[in-house]
Amino acid sequence: MNKYLVIGGVRSGKSRYAEQLAQQHALSDGLNVVYVATAEAFDNEMKERICHHKRSRPKHWQTIETGPELVNTLSKIDRQAVILVDCLTVWLNNCLYYDAINWQLEKSQFLKWLETTEHTVIMVTNEVGFSITPDNPLARQFADEQGWLNQGVAALASNVTFTIAGIPHAIKQH
Amino acid sequence: MNKYLVIGGVRSGKSRYAEQLAQQHALSDGLNVVYVATAEAFDNEMKERICHHKRSRPKHWQTIETGPELVNTLSKIDRQAVILVDCLTVWLNNCLYYDAINWQLEKSQFLKWLETTEHTVIMVTNEVGFSITPDNPLARQFADEQGWLNQGVAALASNVTFTIAGIPHAIKQH
Amino acid sequence: MNKYLVIGGVRSGKSRYAEQLAQQHALSDGLNVVYVATAEAFDNEMKERICHHKRSRPKHWQTIETGPELVNTLSKIDRQAVILVDCLTVWLNNCLYYDAINWQLEKSQFLKWLETTEHTVIMVTNEVGFSITPDNPLARQFADEQGWLNQGVAALASNVTFTIAGIPHAIKQH
Repeated sequence: MNKYLVIGGVRSGKSRYAEQLAQQHALSDGLNVVYVATAEAFDNEMKERICHHKRSRPKHWQTIETGPELVNTLSKIDRQAVILVDCLTVWLNNCLYYDAINWQLEKSQFLKWLETTEHTVIMVTNEVGFSITPDNPLARQFADEQGWLNQGVAALASNVTFTIAGIPHAIKQH
Repeated sequence: MNKYLVIGGVRSGKSRYAEQLAQQHALSDGLNVVYVATAEAFDNEMKERICHHKRSRPKHWQTIETGPELVNTLSKIDRQAVILVDCLTVWLNNCLYYDAINWQLEKSQFLKWLETTEHTVIMVTNEVGFSITPDNPLARQFADEQGWLNQGVAALASNVTFTIAGIPHAIKQH
Repeated sequence: MNKYLVIGGVRSGKSRYAEQLAQQHALSDGLNVVYVATAEAFDNEMKERICHHKRSRPKHWQTIETGPELVNTLSKIDRQAVILVDCLTVWLNNCLYYDAINWQLEKSQFLKWLETTEHTVIMVTNEVGFSITPDNPLARQFADEQGWLNQGVAALASNVTFTIAGIPHAIKQH
């Protein structure tokens, strides 16, 4: 099965490209898309960002909102679907700031799910490490965990695409 | 007509590469280069950065300094010239922090000009979104607007080049 | 001789890729690897980061720790070795915050060494300029110097590889 990772910066067109991939696979395989929204609407700015993305998606897609328990959410999805997870960065953020979650365990279960699932999966993530080292220790920890997560997912992905200025640029192809 | 976007980080060699492109087109087409400098010298550090760039350019190029009204500046340029705009990031900054400017309108007029102009145009911009989300809401807004502007310009560009460590790397070619 | 620059963000897999390159060259040339560690253990977090890297390296490599005087350290290495410098970003940081060091002089001596050495050299560095301009003037200065250093090294390198999510992506090849 194809596993796609789309990685880019803020407003680099990564969600739009991931949605096109999902749409193409759904059409060619005669399947529906299950859109797994990892965003949690903590504040008004985040709500606005979620609405912005929602407006751009086809109305017949199934949307599932998920908190930190992404693996649990994914394991309940019908096997006849293309899964789009948008995005791993918000999921990581949700996990690191929920005390009850063991991130290392959750992450290893996610990577195990990804390795063994029979779904076509398209995942969106952010690259956050091309800057001066942040002063804030939590921000440094976040950048470390994001980088390790991206490496783990990219190693299992059949295709990795880097987006910049809305242009998809293939960096790993199966 | 060729429309080039050169995108990179701080001190990634994007201006130098854009200047080489401008020089090559000017020579092969028998035209002069009009260098559109969007920088405004707000403070001494910015003045130093502007001087640094100015020293590196051929002396016979025509230089026009522009504030937020970039489209107005561009529309007055003689059609027999290669236009180099350096850079869209400073232009965006000038626009967002001038109260009298309607950014969305100015942006749409710029994209319209870019789509219809018969000039060869070379534009320099920054990628600013590969970092931890800034704490500052203005910085987040800036990163959003920069990302959207870059996407809009890249969609109209015939060529998009990503620069890193002084190396130009083509990501869109016509 | 081959000169490799591996450039990427935080936790992008750049050290691991550089270590693989060093290992391959050492095996094919029948040489040992001299690992030049530029990190100084200023605090516990940095000590932890150093340990993390150390655990991943082959035990028979020779490790030399160096402060700001990198060129002096490099000039003492036996010519029959593959040299891995990890990383230029920490070296720059050490140099800029040691009062006794003349950075411009140290840098020009390093570039001279790099141009003339007969060693195979593999260097790791960070790209730090793909973010909103930092508020802090020292951070802006660091980003400028890092960008200029990366350009200088990349110009002399036979190969430049960009790493993202653990994937090496060639941007200059000899």
